[in-house]
Amino acid sequence: MTVRLADAHVAIVGLGLMGGSLAAALSARRACRRIVGIARRPSTLSTALALRIIHQGETNLAQGVREADLVVLATPVRDILARLAEIGPLLKPGCVLLDVGSTKRAICQAMESLPPHVQPVGGHPMCGKETSGLAMAEPDLYQDRVFVLSPLARTAPEALALAEEMVRAVGARPLLLDPIRHDALVAAISHLPYLLSVALVQSAERLSEGDALLWALAASGFRDTSRLAAGSVEMMLDILITNREPILAALEVAQGELAALAALLAQQDFSALQAKLEAARRRRMEVFP
Amino acid sequence: MTVRLADAHVAIVGLGLMGGSLAAALSARRACRRIVGIARRPSTLSTALALRIIHQGETNLAQGVREADLVVLATPVRDILARLAEIGPLLKPGCVLLDVGSTKRAICQAMESLPPHVQPVGGHPMCGKETSGLAMAEPDLYQDRVFVLSPLARTAPEALALAEEMVRAVGARPLLLDPIRHDALVAAISHLPYLLSVALVQSAERLSEGDALLWALAASGFRDTSRLAAGSVEMMLDILITNREPILAALEVAQGELAALAALLAQQDFSALQAKLEAARRRRMEVFP
Repeated sequence: MTVRLADAHVAIVGLGLMGGSLAAALSARRACRRIVGIARRPSTLSTALALRIIHQGETNLAQGVREADLVVLATPVRDILARLAEIGPLLKPGCVLLDVGSTKRAICQAMESLPPHVQPVGGHPMCGKETSGLAMAEPDLYQDRVFVLSPLARTAPEALALAEEMVRAVGARPLLLDPIRHDALVAAISHLPYLLSVALVQSAERLSEGDALLWALAASGFRDTSRLAAGSVEMMLDILITNREPILAALEVAQGELAALAALLAQQDFSALQAKLEAARRRRMEVFP
Repeated sequence: MTVRLADAHVAIVGLGLMGGSLAAALSARRACRRIVGIARRPSTLSTALALRIIHQGETNLAQGVREADLVVLATPVRDILARLAEIGPLLKPGCVLLDVGSTKRAICQAMESLPPHVQPVGGHPMCGKETSGLAMAEPDLYQDRVFVLSPLARTAPEALALAEEMVRAVGARPLLLDPIRHDALVAAISHLPYLLSVALVQSAERLSEGDALLWALAASGFRDTSRLAAGSVEMMLDILITNREPILAALEVAQGELAALAALLAQQDFSALQAKLEAARRRRMEVFP
């Protein structure tokens, strides 16, 4: 029997940007009865307690999740996968287990192996910053963002309802999505931009040939286009590893587009080039008016 | 004999984002004696007059620049090239002719052909927005930005001094740079990011296969990485045309970097991939701490 969020004990595993912001959002709105934070480092827990975004801090997973009605895994993807292998027996019957990992296929597949008394729901809030860590957490991180939820076939309707209630409580909009489709879409919309951003920084480095003036000329255009390259490597590497094939497919398309732009420029086919630039501009302005 | 900026009549040709912001910066600081705006459309001039960022508006180039001590060309690059072919005889002796075009080799080369009574200086302020037009102009656009100046061999020291005085008056930092070196550096730091941004939007469009959900998932990472694709196509096409070879060289390097990332991912060489991601992250954080 699943509780309402207002009566729920919530345990958040990982108090980085995502987990810390979730704790901050839930506590600011007094959305649940109790929030337990679980982190590796005691200093993270003291900070979270001092910020009053958790009621209790635990370094021990078993201790932290024992009484939870809702557990949220908020660590990098491969850490979530490791936790999924051990957490099942630690959870009480009917406990809803949600994650906020950036890829969903591998995680939802691992969730299938959880013991039957656990209610798993895959999740992925479409927000983030290039900075990481609890110090950067903010209660409004989820406000007005899409929060993907991927229930499994085994997930009970009331378990999904509790996850949806939490999503709405932090200001986000739940969107039910199949894990495979999710991973293909985020490969294009999130992982490809990251790799283009990395390729840009690496290219500028090579093209500078040690000329420091290049970096002095970098203005807001370079800053924004390269922003994602400053993201957490640990997090991004886990994403690349667990979403390799859709990302390779997206990279292939991007390489084709870049080659097409280069070919038009080399051939001085400026009217075809203009048509491409205009199509991209129109689409970008539709997506972000 | 060149005047001081405080006594100068300044004429600005083109009252878009760059020219309008320049007029706004100069007038807000009362940096010069008089500002004449020259634009194709009378409505642009009425707006600029209403905003009190120019003292006088002219649609006729000859009328507008006749008494100017300093003329600033602030239109797209190919329009600047066209103006350079006709403006010489319209300028009074000793007039300093500066431009704010995004590429410098073609412009500085065209400036060589100006009559000897004109004092040309190439210029490129390292700032901008993806939006264009007078409505987006702001007096602080140049604040704390690098403003490249490319004097010609023929440029008198006092002419360069007036250009530098204007650069400092609008809050920017003058940086003397050879046109060829400028164009190679901005190909890497500005034009390549634009093309990567266009390739990203085009790739996402292809990968969506008409699935509108893809755009619903686009978060701040996609927004920032694709921002430059919303820039003025007219302006960017002129840049691509007048800086073709350095841009092709930059594209080739970027294609190589992207292929290297794809190869490491395909081969599952995650430690080499991690090293690349970490190098890019370190560099990005050094450039934008």
